[in-house]
Amino acid sequence: MKFKITIAYDGTDYAGWQIQPNAPTIQETIEKVLTQIIQKPISITGSGRTDAGVHANGQVAHFILEEGSISLKSLNGLLPRDIRIFSLEEASPTFHARFSAKEKTYLYHVTTDKVQSPFQRRYAHHNTFPLDLEKIFEALPHFIGTKNFTSFANELSPSRNPQKTLHELAFIKTETGFTLKFRGDGFLYKMVRNITGTLLDIGRGKLDAASLPSIFESKSRSFAGKTAPPHGLFLHEVLY
Amino acid sequence: MKFKITIAYDGTDYAGWQIQPNAPTIQETIEKVLTQIIQKPISITGSGRTDAGVHANGQVAHFILEEGSISLKSLNGLLPRDIRIFSLEEASPTFHARFSAKEKTYLYHVTTDKVQSPFQRRYAHHNTFPLDLEKIFEALPHFIGTKNFTSFANELSPSRNPQKTLHELAFIKTETGFTLKFRGDGFLYKMVRNITGTLLDIGRGKLDAASLPSIFESKSRSFAGKTAPPHGLFLHEVLY
Repeated sequence: MKFKITIAYDGTDYAGWQIQPNAPTIQETIEKVLTQIIQKPISITGSGRTDAGVHANGQVAHFILEEGSISLKSLNGLLPRDIRIFSLEEASPTFHARFSAKEKTYLYHVTTDKVQSPFQRRYAHHNTFPLDLEKIFEALPHFIGTKNFTSFANELSPSRNPQKTLHELAFIKTETGFTLKFRGDGFLYKMVRNITGTLLDIGRGKLDAASLPSIFESKSRSFAGKTAPPHGLFLHEVLY
Repeated sequence: MKFKITIAYDGTDYAGWQIQPNAPTIQETIEKVLTQIIQKPISITGSGRTDAGVHANGQVAHFILEEGSISLKSLNGLLPRDIRIFSLEEASPTFHARFSAKEKTYLYHVTTDKVQSPFQRRYAHHNTFPLDLEKIFEALPHFIGTKNFTSFANELSPSRNPQKTLHELAFIKTETGFTLKFRGDGFLYKMVRNITGTLLDIGRGKLDAASLPSIFESKSRSFAGKTAPPHGLFLHEVLY
């Protein structure tokens, strides 16, 4: 039987989603607990990786259970409190956490006040440079639509299609700064953090929004802005 | 010259405000940084203690600087990121962080959803029992006013006046549960956590609000509810 789980995690103390040698990961931690409950090795497939330090409100994964049963309570009872399973449901045999995903939403939180609250230090990037928010806002439309995002991807594997559709890139003002909301059909490696870093460089005046078309055109990572740090990023939701 | 500082801290990794042997505290951490900047031993006086694991948005402290100068930037540059100084200002010679305080506000955050978000685990108490919120709400007026709060205080030193005035005890519904807001002229040791624990016991049906007058009357800690855990509590503001 196939199961779908929805997972939230505080990524601060993990080396990301995917299993790594010599470092605790989210995938490994959940697999260990499933294996402990079922007493047989179980592996899970996520909707995609998240990097070290990146968080999730709604990561999705699937796994197959040949026999035995599992409950939300037993899972959360054994998991550390920085990983929580919010739902556990039976999935159709054709469901695949990665290949069935239609849309993903990411949030990137930035604080811009002089002193960052200690309660945000793990969950938002503290920008300490003066920013022209108007310039960031005006640059957003350049990223929306179906585009080749090679210039905003790290270490792109040649087999992967660099053409992605970004449906929405929203600038949401918050009490202590702003949040960028990215909704699209798929994202290349570090694409959200690279777009965010580029937007911050535009806000600082280091880069001009008018150069974005030529940055896209170049298909070279070296012309876009730097990669924003991981701890401001949340995989918010995966839609199927 | 006397200085007043306003401090926010994530109390998770500290043994509270006050200096303790063999455990890191907030007071000690700030004093060490001040001493490092001024190159002379400096001690600070807080508006009051907070217990191990309790947080603050607006703790206040004062210290005296015979010579040398200090800036917000140098302080925050040397402090760990879970302690932040939000303001540093000159205070009148008669200002005293504890004795000049007129009012304090505390917040106690409770989450009541089935699975607690990993992002709230350090900052809100997760209540897993069914609660009748109406009962909690109806019990609030019993605590408001000038009263002898001995029944809601731990290890009361006999010299301290157990009569305190609670100006406000508000029940604020949140997306994932509720927050209790306490505003008063002063608070006895563990008073906020003991009132919160008592209100939770009332919500669970373990205690009846009608018995509150006799609990006050008893002047004995043993009749009230249990002490709510520290991590839901924030010293929110100190007014002078």
